[in-house]
Amino acid sequence: MIGIFDSGIGGLTVVKEISKQLPDYNIVYFGDVANLPYGNKSAEKIIEYAIKNTEFLIKQGAKIIVVACNTASAVATDELKKKFDVPIFGVIEPAVEKAIKVSKDRIGVIGTRGTINSKIYEQKILEKNRDLKVFQKECPLLVPLIEENWSEKRETKMIVKKYLHNLKEQEIDTLILGCTHYPLLKDLIQIKIGRRVQIVDSAVEVAKKVKKYLDENPESKKNKNNQHKFFVSDITPHFEEIAGKWLDKKVELEKVNLQK
Amino acid sequence: MIGIFDSGIGGLTVVKEISKQLPDYNIVYFGDVANLPYGNKSAEKIIEYAIKNTEFLIKQGAKIIVVACNTASAVATDELKKKFDVPIFGVIEPAVEKAIKVSKDRIGVIGTRGTINSKIYEQKILEKNRDLKVFQKECPLLVPLIEENWSEKRETKMIVKKYLHNLKEQEIDTLILGCTHYPLLKDLIQIKIGRRVQIVDSAVEVAKKVKKYLDENPESKKNKNNQHKFFVSDITPHFEEIAGKWLDKKVELEKVNLQK
Repeated sequence: MIGIFDSGIGGLTVVKEISKQLPDYNIVYFGDVANLPYGNKSAEKIIEYAIKNTEFLIKQGAKIIVVACNTASAVATDELKKKFDVPIFGVIEPAVEKAIKVSKDRIGVIGTRGTINSKIYEQKILEKNRDLKVFQKECPLLVPLIEENWSEKRETKMIVKKYLHNLKEQEIDTLILGCTHYPLLKDLIQIKIGRRVQIVDSAVEVAKKVKKYLDENPESKKNKNNQHKFFVSDITPHFEEIAGKWLDKKVELEKVNLQK
Repeated sequence: MIGIFDSGIGGLTVVKEISKQLPDYNIVYFGDVANLPYGNKSAEKIIEYAIKNTEFLIKQGAKIIVVACNTASAVATDELKKKFDVPIFGVIEPAVEKAIKVSKDRIGVIGTRGTINSKIYEQKILEKNRDLKVFQKECPLLVPLIEENWSEKRETKMIVKKYLHNLKEQEIDTLILGCTHYPLLKDLIQIKIGRRVQIVDSAVEVAKKVKKYLDENPESKKNKNNQHKFFVSDITPHFEEIAGKWLDKKVELEKVNLQK
């Protein structure tokens, strides 16, 4: 069973991609709605939440953990690897590797304020190749716009254009979507940044990485149930509605309290 | 000492108004940043947070509590009144009373999804006067736009216009700002809804109510220090920056953990 957590709904893009690439596996998802958004919280707090979330997923039977949240991947993956015996996958490394592979020399990164301020992408890219140039831009309004289902509205198009303006001027050749919500705006982002820029989607890349790991470790027995379970730390009507729409099926949520 | 809490930064509009109307009093503020936003959480969770916040403020010496958050006022004020001996002021009642006083017959209410879905304003208004007509509209993107300091941007003007479109069509004569963030957009909202609509600002109204209470209860001794203390459950660089700007002075935050 693959355990996936996020601060809320964004990680469902990772669920979607993993269930596409690994249709035979069971997935258990935890959305920490009670504590969202992680993007504007301190590192200390995010690590505390990430540990609780991981403990919960392992208790549910997860043998692999995917941190489907950029902020938590940036801040907490190393801590989780130290603390737990199961393999831990963040969304950052896979996207960085892909970007380095496809970029000629100029990589753009967009994300929440928390992710961008952490400079994690820049740091990871330059660690691997000091000749690359990295241009970052925080896009804090995209998550609320996506959660409001405003992806098609004119204001969203204007805001995406505004956010991408400088990256376009810098003539980036590759753009990392550094937030698990952003795949929902991929088409619009592609139009605004230009057709010649290669977009790197961390949901796709982390799913490939998990698939590769499972192919190489056949002892992790396949289970043909393809059962997906969704837990949240708080229930809101909006979550179920959006989750159902994104995943194209009825999503039933179960509420758990990890504070107690 | 007056204790004021909010899920984050919005309640600072209430701090500003109270310190304007009651310049001699000490204020202790708690922003529950670690758990923001309240607007999309369940009633159970919000009540739990509101109780912890109130306990903390009373421990700091608060003799009066102002719930400077519409979501928490809607959901938790009655519980707080039952549980604590100090006077508890929510932001909803004062705004409702003012709106009933100034409206001819058609009142609009804007707020977060949580506040609007609770129908608390509609219910409180109709309890007092069944002949009034109430028109509600949730405006979930306004809080992120305000926190991003995008109040002057074209996209914000377009979004405010879109949100107010139906209320304008309904020819409301009074508009309640049902979120403590919204006073920061008051001028823009006035332009978009039209000059003949009277705007009711809950920060102003709750401050008047607290002032009235203190004038009538002179035993609550005045203190000439005019000292303001700000606590938060999590520190983010953004909070200090915006708080300083809104209150026109350097704001020093102290972090506390109420979970432990």
